Amino acid sequence: MLRVLVYDNQTSNLEEMTDPKQVLTAISDTQKTIWVDLTKPSQEEAKLLEEGFHFHAIAVESALKEGERPKFYSYGNYSFLLMEATAASNKGSVVKLSQFSAFISKNYLVTVHQKDVNFIEDTINTIKSEPELLNRGVGFLLYNLLDGLIANYFPILDKIDNKLKTIEERIFQRPNQQVLNEIFKLRQEINQMRKSVSNNLDVLSLMMRHDSMQSSEENRMYLMDLYDHLMHLLDMIDMYHDMVFTSMDAYLSSVSNNMNNIMKVLTAITTIMMPLTVITGIYGMNFDMPEFHWTYGYVWALTLMAVSVIAMTLFLRSRKWL
Amino acid sequence: MLRVLVYDNQTSNLEEMTDPKQVLTAISDTQKTIWVDLTKPSQEEAKLLEEGFHFHAIAVESALKEGERPKFYSYGNYSFLLMEATAASNKGSVVKLSQFSAFISKNYLVTVHQKDVNFIEDTINTIKSEPELLNRGVGFLLYNLLDGLIANYFPILDKIDNKLKTIEERIFQRPNQQVLNEIFKLRQEINQMRKSVSNNLDVLSLMMRHDSMQSSEENRMYLMDLYDHLMHLLDMIDMYHDMVFTSMDAYLSSVSNNMNNIMKVLTAITTIMMPLTVITGIYGMNFDMPEFHWTYGYVWALTLMAVSVIAMTLFLRSRKWL
Amino acid sequence: MLRVLVYDNQTSNLEEMTDPKQVLTAISDTQKTIWVDLTKPSQEEAKLLEEGFHFHAIAVESALKEGERPKFYSYGNYSFLLMEATAASNKGSVVKLSQFSAFISKNYLVTVHQKDVNFIEDTINTIKSEPELLNRGVGFLLYNLLDGLIANYFPILDKIDNKLKTIEERIFQRPNQQVLNEIFKLRQEINQMRKSVSNNLDVLSLMMRHDSMQSSEENRMYLMDLYDHLMHLLDMIDMYHDMVFTSMDAYLSSVSNNMNNIMKVLTAITTIMMPLTVITGIYGMNFDMPEFHWTYGYVWALTLMAVSVIAMTLFLRSRKWL
Amino acid sequence: MLRVLVYDNQTSNLEEMTDPKQVLTAISDTQKTIWVDLTKPSQEEAKLLEEGFHFHAIAVESALKEGERPKFYSYGNYSFLLMEATAASNKGSVVKLSQFSAFISKNYLVTVHQKDVNFIEDTINTIKSEPELLNRGVGFLLYNLLDGLIANYFPILDKIDNKLKTIEERIFQRPNQQVLNEIFKLRQEINQMRKSVSNNLDVLSLMMRHDSMQSSEENRMYLMDLYDHLMHLLDMIDMYHDMVFTSMDAYLSSVSNNMNNIMKVLTAITTIMMPLTVITGIYGMNFDMPEFHWTYGYVWALTLMAVSVIAMTLFLRSRKWL
Amino acid sequence: MLRVLVYDNQTSNLEEMTDPKQVLTAISDTQKTIWVDLTKPSQEEAKLLEEGFHFHAIAVESALKEGERPKFYSYGNYSFLLMEATAASNKGSVVKLSQFSAFISKNYLVTVHQKDVNFIEDTINTIKSEPELLNRGVGFLLYNLLDGLIANYFPILDKIDNKLKTIEERIFQRPNQQVLNEIFKLRQEINQMRKSVSNNLDVLSLMMRHDSMQSSEENRMYLMDLYDHLMHLLDMIDMYHDMVFTSMDAYLSSVSNNMNNIMKVLTAITTIMMPLTVITGIYGMNFDMPEFHWTYGYVWALTLMAVSVIAMTLFLRSRKWL
Repeated sequence: MLRVLVYDNQTSNLEEMTDPKQVLTAISDTQKTIWVDLTKPSQEEAKLLEEGFHFHAIAVESALKEGERPKFYSYGNYSFLLMEATAASNKGSVVKLSQFSAFISKNYLVTVHQKDVNFIEDTINTIKSEPELLNRGVGFLLYNLLDGLIANYFPILDKIDNKLKTIEERIFQRPNQQVLNEIFKLRQEINQMRKSVSNNLDVLSLMMRHDSMQSSEENRMYLMDLYDHLMHLLDMIDMYHDMVFTSMDAYLSSVSNNMNNIMKVLTAITTIMMPLTVITGIYGMNFDMPEFHWTYGYVWALTLMAVSVIAMTLFLRSRKWL
Repeated sequence: MLRVLVYDNQTSNLEEMTDPKQVLTAISDTQKTIWVDLTKPSQEEAKLLEEGFHFHAIAVESALKEGERPKFYSYGNYSFLLMEATAASNKGSVVKLSQFSAFISKNYLVTVHQKDVNFIEDTINTIKSEPELLNRGVGFLLYNLLDGLIANYFPILDKIDNKLKTIEERIFQRPNQQVLNEIFKLRQEINQMRKSVSNNLDVLSLMMRHDSMQSSEENRMYLMDLYDHLMHLLDMIDMYHDMVFTSMDAYLSSVSNNMNNIMKVLTAITTIMMPLTVITGIYGMNFDMPEFHWTYGYVWALTLMAVSVIAMTLFLRSRKWL
Repeated sequence: MLRVLVYDNQTSNLEEMTDPKQVLTAISDTQKTIWVDLTKPSQEEAKLLEEGFHFHAIAVESALKEGERPKFYSYGNYSFLLMEATAASNKGSVVKLSQFSAFISKNYLVTVHQKDVNFIEDTINTIKSEPELLNRGVGFLLYNLLDGLIANYFPILDKIDNKLKTIEERIFQRPNQQVLNEIFKLRQEINQMRKSVSNNLDVLSLMMRHDSMQSSEENRMYLMDLYDHLMHLLDMIDMYHDMVFTSMDAYLSSVSNNMNNIMKVLTAITTIMMPLTVITGIYGMNFDMPEFHWTYGYVWALTLMAVSVIAMTLFLRSRKWL
Repeated sequence: MLRVLVYDNQTSNLEEMTDPKQVLTAISDTQKTIWVDLTKPSQEEAKLLEEGFHFHAIAVESALKEGERPKFYSYGNYSFLLMEATAASNKGSVVKLSQFSAFISKNYLVTVHQKDVNFIEDTINTIKSEPELLNRGVGFLLYNLLDGLIANYFPILDKIDNKLKTIEERIFQRPNQQVLNEIFKLRQEINQMRKSVSNNLDVLSLMMRHDSMQSSEENRMYLMDLYDHLMHLLDMIDMYHDMVFTSMDAYLSSVSNNMNNIMKVLTAITTIMMPLTVITGIYGMNFDMPEFHWTYGYVWALTLMAVSVIAMTLFLRSRKWL
Repeated sequence: MLRVLVYDNQTSNLEEMTDPKQVLTAISDTQKTIWVDLTKPSQEEAKLLEEGFHFHAIAVESALKEGERPKFYSYGNYSFLLMEATAASNKGSVVKLSQFSAFISKNYLVTVHQKDVNFIEDTINTIKSEPELLNRGVGFLLYNLLDGLIANYFPILDKIDNKLKTIEERIFQRPNQQVLNEIFKLRQEINQMRKSVSNNLDVLSLMMRHDSMQSSEENRMYLMDLYDHLMHLLDMIDMYHDMVFTSMDAYLSSVSNNMNNIMKVLTAITTIMMPLTVITGIYGMNFDMPEFHWTYGYVWALTLMAVSVIAMTLFLRSRKWL
């Protein structure tokens, strides 16, 4: 789907276009700030990138393929930026990644993405209501989009936070193999997310170091702000990474704690019952024992057993095994 | 709350102001050294930053929001510094972080913070009693504030030290799941503190590399002193980090030691009692055994059992299991 | 085996040569783009490199030996590139490495390899069908070959993926020592592959930093594309590395889970049966007990035992050990 | 305690001074090489540093306080060096750290330390016997002092080596919780020492990079020699660090080995005795069994039990559990 | 032992010398390429270095002492190189390190070593048979020596490989404490070797960065070749390091596997025998049970026991514990 916003810096007029030819004419007018957005581009729209805008074949291919690594290339009069974006995930896994590409020129920006991304819609709406924002140029528009892209990571962190809390509760209530599998899955998702954020960060710092993007002092401020946001994300992800490892340690120690309890009970039972077995064994021997002739022989035997149980219980208490 | 100290370098006179308009007039007089402190700024006071002092919107936003990452931006004639500060924590968790922002200009310093921070009060009192300290300029004032900010971390290290000592004692007296949870919590707090100090350090070294802050040799000395303090903090935190891991290892080995003791007792009981069961079992068989006809048959059986107990005990001793 | 493709940039004519002498004459004609490929070079063909093309002895030796480390040397008017390539592995281990060498000059490219490599065949076929591709120079030819070399790594990742899935299934169905050995083997293969890719990456970035390779903007684009592909490979390998470690953790916890189940059963049996042994022991004593004279003495004893079994079962249920 | 050695480069005469005023006069004579040593400086002597020599307040404060981090500051015409030194430790912990400060000027050196350090005494004695060594300047004097400071670390490594050997022996003879605690303690001391050496190394490389210290080629050689010594120390500490971790692994596996032996014995006892219990149980039943009427019924039962014991023993042998 | 080879570049004549004085005369003739080798230098020969060749005292001391760290110093018109070499180890530990020093001047090379090193002998023999090799200068001679030094590491890797294979076999056949100790020892030796190779590498890259060594393009090629060899060594050592850790994991899991088998047998025995004990216990009670009066009472009891054994066996099979 092709959507084009054309802003005239002189008349402050915002126009929507649909005809590709009209767009190609508009971009040659440096008095205009133009944003071309391609959502799930059709083959025809895809062709426009290479043949209409004359972007480099490798960049166009990257923009259209899914699963590319974040990258920033600079080609003389335009730059190509590809970043990972988070996509709306219905359920199941927490993290789902999509990609967002932008061709950045002096007076126009072409964005390409295969999935509906909410920050695109948001920015379109913002611009429609306040067109004069485009007065601040393509750099400011890109800043707004990337700010949205980065902001989208935070709800995922919230989800991870929730999952961690659920996991922690279950570890202390009833640790089982299933909890562990969830910990493993979360660990992998956090790793995946770390990679994604860190790759985006690499690309952003590449972009910051690149001359053309630093043209205005204003632009530099915006890029540094984005950089800080991504660094903040990384700090938080590292914290969750730590917490997942703590969860695993807690799980393992909780399991071993249960095992220890079982061993204690086993010991207690054995320690208490074994002497009883020996006593009954003795009086089960077919000797003609004196005790058999006592009036209270049976009582004597039962008393012996009770004493043994009490003694053993006290012994276990003293060792804190009961 | 707005507090303003205006020091006249020529008359050595210290004046307190409350009217924002007066302040804005004062800062244009380069003969004056001015410190503006905003504690929990009201919306009106916050507006002053952007509209009165004309600080950059992004910097002002960072200064007013909580939970920002430490940063240092330089804007032509002023710099913006944001550092993490430790806040007074009543109880529960050891570490509690707040943030401290400063706008640094040639002849005035604007500090912003959302929480009451003791080092601000201390510096205000010092200056009120010795106004001529402001003669040494904004850099020296900032040095005093950051020195206080860093010094605030040390009491937290003392708390961590105390916690670690309590934990260590409990590990060897009665290791249980609760001790482990405290170790996990402490580990996370130390990690968090490490992040905080290391982020502050990054910002400080950014500031040191920045020209304007190094104007005087004197300033460079002060910044290097702060840098050394933060590095010292990091060294100590790393040491505590090590100690927490040692605690965890000690806990685990203490638990496994207990388990081994249980196994030893279990073995001992089984080893000692099993032969008794067999002996009583034999003489409980309904054969017409010769022993039943001996005069001391019963005594013989009991002796056999006593010998077995002694033999087994000696065997266990030789293996050091008793 | 010697194969030579000679392309005349002016006549757009592609010629195949077999006579080494003819080749040496052709390379001095800068209007021609020449590709010389040596598969498992015979001693005579090997001599050609040093004596015919006058390549440096050390470079030639590296190209002919197997087991060399990826490297890039620049010698005035030509460069030497050695990269690790994946070789077709029949079965058993997943990763099997071979090596690919290239001598890169202005108008000719000499490639040397000891194993049949499919991307060489593919590129030869492509060129035979579209000779004008050689119009874009030696750099583009090299790009195509290295692109093929890198693409060959991806099927190996698929194999690793399959193995990991099989391993994961077996871990939860029946974890045994054999699964663990496969995990160990896979871990080592992933490490080996990581090393290989990372070494290739080092060489590529060395090549990118080298002036002569960056002559045209076009070349730079191609090298950056290859770089991105290798970085993407590394990201994926790191992910599999993570997953193998997760598998190991899963295996260990699965084994310890089984062990815990065994302990629980052991406890349950002991807890349930021990009281029965004591009860039967008591009534097996040769005292003249009152119970023996009761009409329902035997029933009483059996009831006692049933009650004991029920009580113990409830106790175990309450502790969630059954 | 103040000790001053004044060497006249022209007359090769060595003079000891005690009067601070005399010293301050001497240092202005560039023909003299002067070494001022302050051991546990009194308040009056401490004042001399700031007021007599006019050293910077921050440097003087660092030199007088204990527990500072190694640092190197350069102030125009003099430099300040602070390094960690090992102090004589009577017993208990292996590592005990003190600090050594030096103010380095063109023609005089002021050293400050709170503890008696043997290398100071040694250097004083060397100079008294060979005063002409001071002819080689302040740099050579400093080299001698730092060489002694570094050499002092090696005896500590010997102590660590001895401790490790004792620990290793005890691990295989009788592993207990106490050995583990000693391992933990040693690990922490090695970490502490690593930190200390690595901080000193940082300071030394800072000093090497600083122009004034590299004035002569000779000085550079000496500093590089010190650097090599510290790097060698680090290599050795890393080796001991490795060995401590190996000791911990050895301890853990030794403990688990003991546990396994216990389990084996438990299994053996259970496996051998259980059938006996069953056999005696059977012949203890009150049925009128045919065996009771056999002449050798009792012998038969005993034979059965003997056979069972032998069979079980062979079974355990076959599994290598006995 | 002093050995001197003097090659005259003009007459291509190789001469052996023994008189130190003659040697010192020869080195001033720049038309000659001279190699002086000192094996286990006597005190007199050692003196020659400082007094005859006028090498720096620190460098000479390093060359004569054992146990120095690899280093490269440059002194105006000569350089000093010290590398670790592997010494022939008879048996016991795999790795045994010695050291090799070289003083490199324009037209002469002085090598010093305390142990007989085979690559020295080899190079002497090569030169004696092909003296014209010295025509290529001191750099080429040094390259040959260092190439031999590096090549000596590879047989050690073979030994490590063999040890690892033996260890792996023993882990799966009979894992015991002794295997683990060998793993620990091998781990330490690999670490030691890594350190040695990595230190040599540092020195080599220092030498490569140094101007004088790069004088000719040819020299640069040789140094890069040596660098590649050392990097290759490091890659292989890292691989063995990985494999040792895998061995340790395999050992631990093999031990825990054995433990699990023991637990399974213990469970099986308990599960099968316990009901038998209860049954015999019941019929051992002195009640007047109806079964005692049955004709096939005894058979009934034995049948009951057989059924119990079969039922339990099936139960264990279903849980895969038998």
